[in-house]
Amino acid sequence: MRSTAFYRNEFIIHLEKKIEVKEPKNLYEPINYILGLGGKRLRPVLTLMTTDLFGGILQDALDAALAIEMFHNFSLVHDDIMDDAPLRRGKTTVHEKWDVNTGILSGDAMLINSYQFFESYDSEVFKKLTILFSKTAIEVCEGQQYDVDFELRDDVTIPEYLKMIEYKTAVLVAAAMKMGAIIAKASQNDTDYIYEFGKNLGIAFQLQDDYLDAFGDPETFGKQVGGDIMENKKTFLYLKSLEFAPKEQQESLKHLYSLQPEDPTTKIETVKSIFMESGAVEEAKKEISDYTQKAFDALVSIKMSEKNKSVLKEFGENLMKRTV
Amino acid sequence: MRSTAFYRNEFIIHLEKKIEVKEPKNLYEPINYILGLGGKRLRPVLTLMTTDLFGGILQDALDAALAIEMFHNFSLVHDDIMDDAPLRRGKTTVHEKWDVNTGILSGDAMLINSYQFFESYDSEVFKKLTILFSKTAIEVCEGQQYDVDFELRDDVTIPEYLKMIEYKTAVLVAAAMKMGAIIAKASQNDTDYIYEFGKNLGIAFQLQDDYLDAFGDPETFGKQVGGDIMENKKTFLYLKSLEFAPKEQQESLKHLYSLQPEDPTTKIETVKSIFMESGAVEEAKKEISDYTQKAFDALVSIKMSEKNKSVLKEFGENLMKRTV
Repeated sequence: MRSTAFYRNEFIIHLEKKIEVKEPKNLYEPINYILGLGGKRLRPVLTLMTTDLFGGILQDALDAALAIEMFHNFSLVHDDIMDDAPLRRGKTTVHEKWDVNTGILSGDAMLINSYQFFESYDSEVFKKLTILFSKTAIEVCEGQQYDVDFELRDDVTIPEYLKMIEYKTAVLVAAAMKMGAIIAKASQNDTDYIYEFGKNLGIAFQLQDDYLDAFGDPETFGKQVGGDIMENKKTFLYLKSLEFAPKEQQESLKHLYSLQPEDPTTKIETVKSIFMESGAVEEAKKEISDYTQKAFDALVSIKMSEKNKSVLKEFGENLMKRTV
Repeated sequence: MRSTAFYRNEFIIHLEKKIEVKEPKNLYEPINYILGLGGKRLRPVLTLMTTDLFGGILQDALDAALAIEMFHNFSLVHDDIMDDAPLRRGKTTVHEKWDVNTGILSGDAMLINSYQFFESYDSEVFKKLTILFSKTAIEVCEGQQYDVDFELRDDVTIPEYLKMIEYKTAVLVAAAMKMGAIIAKASQNDTDYIYEFGKNLGIAFQLQDDYLDAFGDPETFGKQVGGDIMENKKTFLYLKSLEFAPKEQQESLKHLYSLQPEDPTTKIETVKSIFMESGAVEEAKKEISDYTQKAFDALVSIKMSEKNKSVLKEFGENLMKRTV
């Protein structure tokens, strides 16, 4: 049984072989920089793993995995500009290290580069992968737009929030896996269900990310712990607290979310205690577990050995136990 | 013989049919806005015209033409952010009307949308068009990066400048025509030479644009006349003046290009007189004519009736007589 570390290693070797700093350097160096910051390589690992588990040839999936990782990093570069984020994976963001214009243009080149990695596939597979990629990429943009829009609204509902994270995060995880299945020539039924697996796992992953953003370990969590609270982000924890907390706590939470104090320590701690006392934290944990279960349910309809299915389950379980 | 106006009209009907403002509105409204600002529709007209002149079916070229126009507008939105430009086609730019983040994200969606318009072609043609599109799009980004880099350099050569405008502008005109030829199932030889025609015409077009930016009619030129001079842009006219002008004028020009006066009127007039007196204006006109001729020379090797070739020639000649 191949480990996550094995897939990650195969991917990184391919990444290093394919990414070169060409002229003009100011366009390509930031791309090299952001791709070199590491990260979990979750999405490309899933592409490789899916091809492998469906009996395809691992090497065939490397370029699609690279396209997915390149796109993911493109979205980080542009999102970090929009969020004015100073740090990514504990290092300076591209627009901080260079400038906003460099971030915009290098990001654009990364998006185009992503498409180019599919060129090694034959016309039929190329078209399938490219169509899926474009659909996913547009949804990611729509998800980001909803995220931006939600900042200015105070009537965001939980279903709207879940749709936003589905688009912004989950569909790319789903597409990463579906591409792996397409490359392994899996059936339509199997590619559809592996997409469902990935999508639900992706939603669980993002809810977990929301949780870790507030309650994660500052030593291991790559982003600033409490960052969402500082920026008054209406995450699942916030929306559920508003639903569950007594009137007085609701008002207190709304008030705290209208402030941006210079020293956010007290605000973060007070908000966190409301998240806990209201029952929102428990509810988030339940949702994470429910979406993980939904993902596992999708596996039932897939034609794959139980041994291989258990690899996917184990991956999902480990993802939900993560602290980073 | 079909006129440019005919192709433009066919294109606009298709554009209006295909572009809809979906949810989230804040993502799609800016796209609708920029595409609705008009412009010459030069590139999509060339795609349709090329398909038609090679004996293909005009309707088959509409989606590719739309992809090209969408990409062109994407690049305008992102470039306008980078240049902090207030006006585009005489109207407020997207990042001024909305904000920078909206410009970034709507631009991203436009780039992805461009790719999606190729999905109506069969796998073989889809792959050909998509590969050409990606190659072109990356070159446009590289051209934009060279343009940015040149602002900080004072040793830019004329060949470097010509390469920059080839990438930033000409390759998209070339690709627009090559796509038209591919859709009409033209031979490899013909698609290669029509690319050369478009590329050289595109370089002539940009040199003409540089000229009009300084000497165009403020009533008809969509951008601010003198804008390049205000922003100290090292255009062909500037670089040639430095080459041709006497030492004293060179120093005067360099000095003027270190300033950004609140009222730029005097600066613009002084720079324009140096452009004229140095012989740079004459030289620019000669280059425009040379590149137009190079474009016409490429037509010789193409298998196409003389009547159809004369349509392309006439188009090129009219383009060089334009004032907008």
